[in-house]
Amino acid sequence: MAIRLFITGGTFDKTYDEISGRLHFEDTHAHEMLRLGRCRLDVAVRTLMMIDSLEMTDDDRRSILESCRSAAEERILITHGTDTMVETGRVLGQAALPRTIVLTGAMVPYAFGSSDGLFNLGSALSFVQVLPHGVYIAMNGHCFSWDNVAKNRAAGIFETVR
Amino acid sequence: MAIRLFITGGTFDKTYDEISGRLHFEDTHAHEMLRLGRCRLDVAVRTLMMIDSLEMTDDDRRSILESCRSAAEERILITHGTDTMVETGRVLGQAALPRTIVLTGAMVPYAFGSSDGLFNLGSALSFVQVLPHGVYIAMNGHCFSWDNVAKNRAAGIFETVR
Amino acid sequence: MAIRLFITGGTFDKTYDEISGRLHFEDTHAHEMLRLGRCRLDVAVRTLMMIDSLEMTDDDRRSILESCRSAAEERILITHGTDTMVETGRVLGQAALPRTIVLTGAMVPYAFGSSDGLFNLGSALSFVQVLPHGVYIAMNGHCFSWDNVAKNRAAGIFETVR
Amino acid sequence: MAIRLFITGGTFDKTYDEISGRLHFEDTHAHEMLRLGRCRLDVAVRTLMMIDSLEMTDDDRRSILESCRSAAEERILITHGTDTMVETGRVLGQAALPRTIVLTGAMVPYAFGSSDGLFNLGSALSFVQVLPHGVYIAMNGHCFSWDNVAKNRAAGIFETVR
Repeated sequence: MAIRLFITGGTFDKTYDEISGRLHFEDTHAHEMLRLGRCRLDVAVRTLMMIDSLEMTDDDRRSILESCRSAAEERILITHGTDTMVETGRVLGQAALPRTIVLTGAMVPYAFGSSDGLFNLGSALSFVQVLPHGVYIAMNGHCFSWDNVAKNRAAGIFETVR
Repeated sequence: MAIRLFITGGTFDKTYDEISGRLHFEDTHAHEMLRLGRCRLDVAVRTLMMIDSLEMTDDDRRSILESCRSAAEERILITHGTDTMVETGRVLGQAALPRTIVLTGAMVPYAFGSSDGLFNLGSALSFVQVLPHGVYIAMNGHCFSWDNVAKNRAAGIFETVR
Repeated sequence: MAIRLFITGGTFDKTYDEISGRLHFEDTHAHEMLRLGRCRLDVAVRTLMMIDSLEMTDDDRRSILESCRSAAEERILITHGTDTMVETGRVLGQAALPRTIVLTGAMVPYAFGSSDGLFNLGSALSFVQVLPHGVYIAMNGHCFSWDNVAKNRAAGIFETVR
Repeated sequence: MAIRLFITGGTFDKTYDEISGRLHFEDTHAHEMLRLGRCRLDVAVRTLMMIDSLEMTDDDRRSILESCRSAAEERILITHGTDTMVETGRVLGQAALPRTIVLTGAMVPYAFGSSDGLFNLGSALSFVQVLPHGVYIAMNGHCFSWDNVAKNRAAGIFETVR
């Protein structure tokens, strides 16, 4: 079963710039993480953008949607910043593509020892294999439907809204 | 949705004994791993045994089966050494309990920086939530039915047999 | 031999705030690092401040100098942001206290998997034990006298100036 | 100042063999550790052997001694298993070479998240730069003269004997 993994950036892929002393983006950590998980699934990785999701525009979201629409794979995983993951999920969900699309991310960058990224990646890759067509957000063990989830920013968690 | 997590030991939980210079077992790393994954599922952990799966006896397997049979939860995850995970899966599978049971483990101890354990734990927790009743082995992204899986020891991977 | 370890913050101790998505300061990692190094030296830790060294004022530096002057220990290690470590070294060096004072830090926060912090801490603790009275900067294996060192910010390294 | 780093194996460099499930030796981690520490010293690494120090023979020790005697560098660091580090130190110490030789190692393999290896490497590289000719053991912050140190195996620490 072929799985497409689209990278968009977010906390998941932030890394530390030794010169500026700030968090920034270089290449995705997805390949290293799949290797660490000894993942034996057929996953094809493509980086669509590498941005903080607070800076993601409507155009960016349309671009992600088009990438999903034209993908050869029926099963698509997207790494995404947590701050606007729900908004992107809505754009994808309303398009009702004949695909299983799962968005995931991390509360702490993978480059930190304390990251939840590897756990979330393993979790999301399972959900994308078995769930029916639809758009989902997989974070911290849970899987939410795109139309019943919100990020509680004060607590730093995702939860259902109904 | 309540999930029961039974610990039996295996590579997953091996740690380094500074005094003897050998790998051995202390407490399970499962709690620390769930915390690292910021897992928000309702997971109840119980350690059944803490052994290398090469040393697991028929009695041990019967004891695991009885723990599954008498568990209050319908969804059960078991951490297990990879060497005889398939044998334990067969004992559980033939019992055909009205439960979803997933076995997982690791090729490299969690205490090592290069472990696949956190990825597998995230993956297995997803499968156990969504799969129908049955017994499964979740390793390295894949989920196998108990009656169609073998460990290829030379390659250190799990694969289907049919 | 008693060693005093003064904490002032800097990259060394920056950590990731999951709620804001920014690097910030919580408690020092020094205790955890000494434990990880199984350090058996007699080290007494005290946090003087917890700030980015770009924000360190003349008053802060006078306060660090007074803490060194009044310390009971002859051997003092100071963790410090790399950006103005040399300035603080100059204030301490010009005071010519009858003490061995070593400043160290990290190019990458200890909380990152790729940090040089533990290496630098081990290195600095050795230099502070054996060097004569004076003020030194220990970074990335080297030990510089306070009056012959500069940070090359473009390259992210410390080097001699003469 | 040129430093020679001789690798002999020991806990320091043990890694996990996924196929056999045992600790074994592959290549040294020294290069990776020097890179992680962003070490800017002039260190030339050479692997002399890659063995558990319990299996080190008199011939092995003579071979290490000859490597030290014929080294171009005056300052030599040796990574070594902790169990017989003191014995090798004695062989080197009695030869009274006109060199500064420091032996170091780790209580926990570097490949483990909880290793003291990086701390010890940073520490030993400092001692080897500044100490006078002689043979020393640098472990866990301390530096011992070869003729006044023993490993307390029950406690897993090094201590003076006089």
